[in-house]
Amino acid sequence: MSEALKPSLHTVLTPQLLDLYEIKDSIVVIIDVFRATSTMATALYNGATKIIPVDSPETCIEIGTATGGITAGERDGKIIPGLSYGNSPSEYPRSFIENKTLVITTTNGTKLLHMALKKGAKEIITGSFPNISKVVDYLKAQNAPVILGCSGWKNRFNIEDTLFAGAVIEQIKDQFTIHCDSSYMANQLYNANKNDLHNYIKTLTHWHRLAAYGLEADMLYCISADTAPCLPLFKDGALINQG
Amino acid sequence: MSEALKPSLHTVLTPQLLDLYEIKDSIVVIIDVFRATSTMATALYNGATKIIPVDSPETCIEIGTATGGITAGERDGKIIPGLSYGNSPSEYPRSFIENKTLVITTTNGTKLLHMALKKGAKEIITGSFPNISKVVDYLKAQNAPVILGCSGWKNRFNIEDTLFAGAVIEQIKDQFTIHCDSSYMANQLYNANKNDLHNYIKTLTHWHRLAAYGLEADMLYCISADTAPCLPLFKDGALINQG
Repeated sequence: MSEALKPSLHTVLTPQLLDLYEIKDSIVVIIDVFRATSTMATALYNGATKIIPVDSPETCIEIGTATGGITAGERDGKIIPGLSYGNSPSEYPRSFIENKTLVITTTNGTKLLHMALKKGAKEIITGSFPNISKVVDYLKAQNAPVILGCSGWKNRFNIEDTLFAGAVIEQIKDQFTIHCDSSYMANQLYNANKNDLHNYIKTLTHWHRLAAYGLEADMLYCISADTAPCLPLFKDGALINQG
Repeated sequence: MSEALKPSLHTVLTPQLLDLYEIKDSIVVIIDVFRATSTMATALYNGATKIIPVDSPETCIEIGTATGGITAGERDGKIIPGLSYGNSPSEYPRSFIENKTLVITTTNGTKLLHMALKKGAKEIITGSFPNISKVVDYLKAQNAPVILGCSGWKNRFNIEDTLFAGAVIEQIKDQFTIHCDSSYMANQLYNANKNDLHNYIKTLTHWHRLAAYGLEADMLYCISADTAPCLPLFKDGALINQG
């Protein structure tokens, strides 16, 4: 395909930069490696009927009550009062989550998803290492502009979401026109560290934050590729598994 | 010095993220590699009395008229109508700029400087490769928190400003407490590319933008270290050379 005919790809490093990008014709990939989108992929792969991402604990309780869904959300490593479960992928094995609805609120990922929705994204999916190949295959097949949206940490840049963006770019870059320093940086960062991800993530600010809550195993799971192969697509207010 | 006693260091990747950081006790380093802060260092090193950075062409004309200063500013590679000179460091040799006042407006750098001023930065200096060692020496001597402020491109992330932040971090990191993914990334990006900066910058979005205006030589100058050793410090509305 000639360069001019390839769709564009941009990486948005934090939610606070989303307004700088036109997203109406784009597929937006919501990325929250530690741990929202990793947990979402895991729950859907393990048979959850759907996931309703909400932007506040109050809405979580309200929708949980209305749907009979499981409510989940953490702040500072603890389950939010009034909700029933946390943000860890380990809490959602098939034996527990199959055929259930999960209503979840998180610090960064669900917020970005709602921002992208409000800004009129053509389509929203979620991405994480546990479902990376499904994301890559989907983006390759659509022939549409792509926004890789990093959830960051309270609007600041974080490395783990950028690493995932770089990993996706590495696999799809030949099919896209990329004039975007954020994407070049993400791709280079991933390639520089891909052979030692397990040690590299131990140097990051988020590692130290979550390790203080004893969540090291969660984080190692969250950078493992294709352990939960599914495609969470946002449709009619919920993420469903598109296969 | 024990870790707890070292001052903090953060990197702000674009002006749009500045509001996420507390800067009142910090020295803010304004970074606009292509080309505002490189040109400012060059003009001061070549003997300009002072540089008045302003945030609009209208203010530039007004202050230029009031002070008898030289007005400068470009948009899209052309001198802004009503101003007299452009943003190229090559326009400010000693034979021209010595003992003169430069009043300058630029797309990104002067905007960030005014944002930092408004937000109450303790001190503002400008940084660029042509004066990097002076910046490093100054920051090492102050024992104060540091914000490395990248001007970016129209609020988006750019690589060249981040590279400069990474180059500074490489030289001062032992003296600071750094819990900041942006700084870790900047430092790694610099180290990965420092031995081939001339080729690396040719892959960046800004290179292509400015090369279209024939400004390749400008950009190669702007990534050359210590060609204009001086320290531009903002004081009483203007940047002056602190030596």
